[in-house]
Amino acid sequence: MTHYISFVRPDGTASFGRLDGETVYDLGVPGAPARLRDALGGDLGALAVTGTFARSAVRLLPVVPDPGKILCIGLNYATHVAETGRDQKDHPAVFTRWADTLVADGAPLVRPRESVRFDYEGELAVVIGKGGRRIARADAMAHVAGYAVFNDGSVRDWQRHNIQFTPGKNFPGTGGFGPTLVTPDAVPDLASQRVQTRLNGQLVQDQPISDLIWDIPYLIEYCSTFTELAPGDVIATGTPGGVGDKRTPPLYMKAGDRVEVSIGVVGTLANPIVDEA
Amino acid sequence: MTHYISFVRPDGTASFGRLDGETVYDLGVPGAPARLRDALGGDLGALAVTGTFARSAVRLLPVVPDPGKILCIGLNYATHVAETGRDQKDHPAVFTRWADTLVADGAPLVRPRESVRFDYEGELAVVIGKGGRRIARADAMAHVAGYAVFNDGSVRDWQRHNIQFTPGKNFPGTGGFGPTLVTPDAVPDLASQRVQTRLNGQLVQDQPISDLIWDIPYLIEYCSTFTELAPGDVIATGTPGGVGDKRTPPLYMKAGDRVEVSIGVVGTLANPIVDEA
Repeated sequence: MTHYISFVRPDGTASFGRLDGETVYDLGVPGAPARLRDALGGDLGALAVTGTFARSAVRLLPVVPDPGKILCIGLNYATHVAETGRDQKDHPAVFTRWADTLVADGAPLVRPRESVRFDYEGELAVVIGKGGRRIARADAMAHVAGYAVFNDGSVRDWQRHNIQFTPGKNFPGTGGFGPTLVTPDAVPDLASQRVQTRLNGQLVQDQPISDLIWDIPYLIEYCSTFTELAPGDVIATGTPGGVGDKRTPPLYMKAGDRVEVSIGVVGTLANPIVDEA
Repeated sequence: MTHYISFVRPDGTASFGRLDGETVYDLGVPGAPARLRDALGGDLGALAVTGTFARSAVRLLPVVPDPGKILCIGLNYATHVAETGRDQKDHPAVFTRWADTLVADGAPLVRPRESVRFDYEGELAVVIGKGGRRIARADAMAHVAGYAVFNDGSVRDWQRHNIQFTPGKNFPGTGGFGPTLVTPDAVPDLASQRVQTRLNGQLVQDQPISDLIWDIPYLIEYCSTFTELAPGDVIATGTPGGVGDKRTPPLYMKAGDRVEVSIGVVGTLANPIVDEA
């Protein structure tokens, strides 16, 4: 079971490496900035260890801090389609986030000044290893570097200002992505892993990956048809039913809250909520 | 009247510079790649000329070949809102393109294999100079580096696969952006410039910038509220009525066609259409 992380070394430079228990094995060139995305197209297992740190000596970054493309899939669990009152279509909804929306495991998610309708969306993220265009479904899994947990934090009023979601999905610091990249060999039974979101300990989303309407090979095939995928690109596969905005009464995230998304062996992403200063 | 361009030098390196008639004044470091976006936050007029080329000796690139963010505004002319049958909302629709969708003036726009519904959308593009977050309307124009012509080429069936436009707006080579960045002082009467799109010479869109529902200062204020803008970011301000997909019969772009978007003194962006190989 291999976990990769992006992190800041004690000297302040960013790097990436392998996390094994409480030890971080640096895989970047010492003293120089290094990016996981630059290594994801090759064989991570073949990289030389250039240093070690205690887990507590580094600061985690989002799994991939700077993906070139973040494709977010909407309406990919029937329970969520139903609660939004939308129709099931023949293709998934795809919207985008920019990398500056992402925070690491443990870092605060930021409720912006402009809204009190800050909502969670627990999701499985697929991180692309080998890039490509028009990747066939049958070949798709060979393009997966691994999985991570994603919280597609959403500013609901801004998401619904008009018919496109961009504004509500792109406030800085609203998306959680971590803690680690878990390689596919470590998740032999991905389908049965459950996406479980907890807000202050209360279980608010809970569905297995097998409930995805469009599975991972399809999503890679579909997305790579209209855009070229590159190492480090992220496909966030969509959220199950149970979002706060569709509850009665609604349930939003506010300063002092703690949100946790667990996906079985893929890991647990935990973030406190803060109000923007 | 100052025109800036991004281009490929005869030696194959990318640079940027000033275009004056048929002469290109290189503003990058000779022999090394240089990017307009890195210079847009400063004073372009203060940059030293490092070389000159005949216009015919360089290959044009999209005005900014690699914007960090491309924000596309939808539904910003009443005529277009009406032809789509949608409601006018209190805020604009915002979707995104990635930089790999862009082609320069003169380069072919590519109709992908997957569709015959490839449509034009003539637009004014605003290029950000000084970046910022929560830029007030009153300060917004100080953040504009200049204007360019944009063709937000759209693959209509993929745009409507589901409720988000991403797939139909992100096929590689479907967006035109050029020919030059025109500084605001050169466009004293922007409001009266007309967005005119011609397909094979036939005028298919024709409206003045003054018809924008949300004007440029508002768009900068709105977009910079939910995301930080940086030098080289692009806001494509939306297309007037007259798109091909809403005509009877529909009018799509196909191999051998030529599409031209003119916006008065901002310039003319002309592209042939090719079928993807």
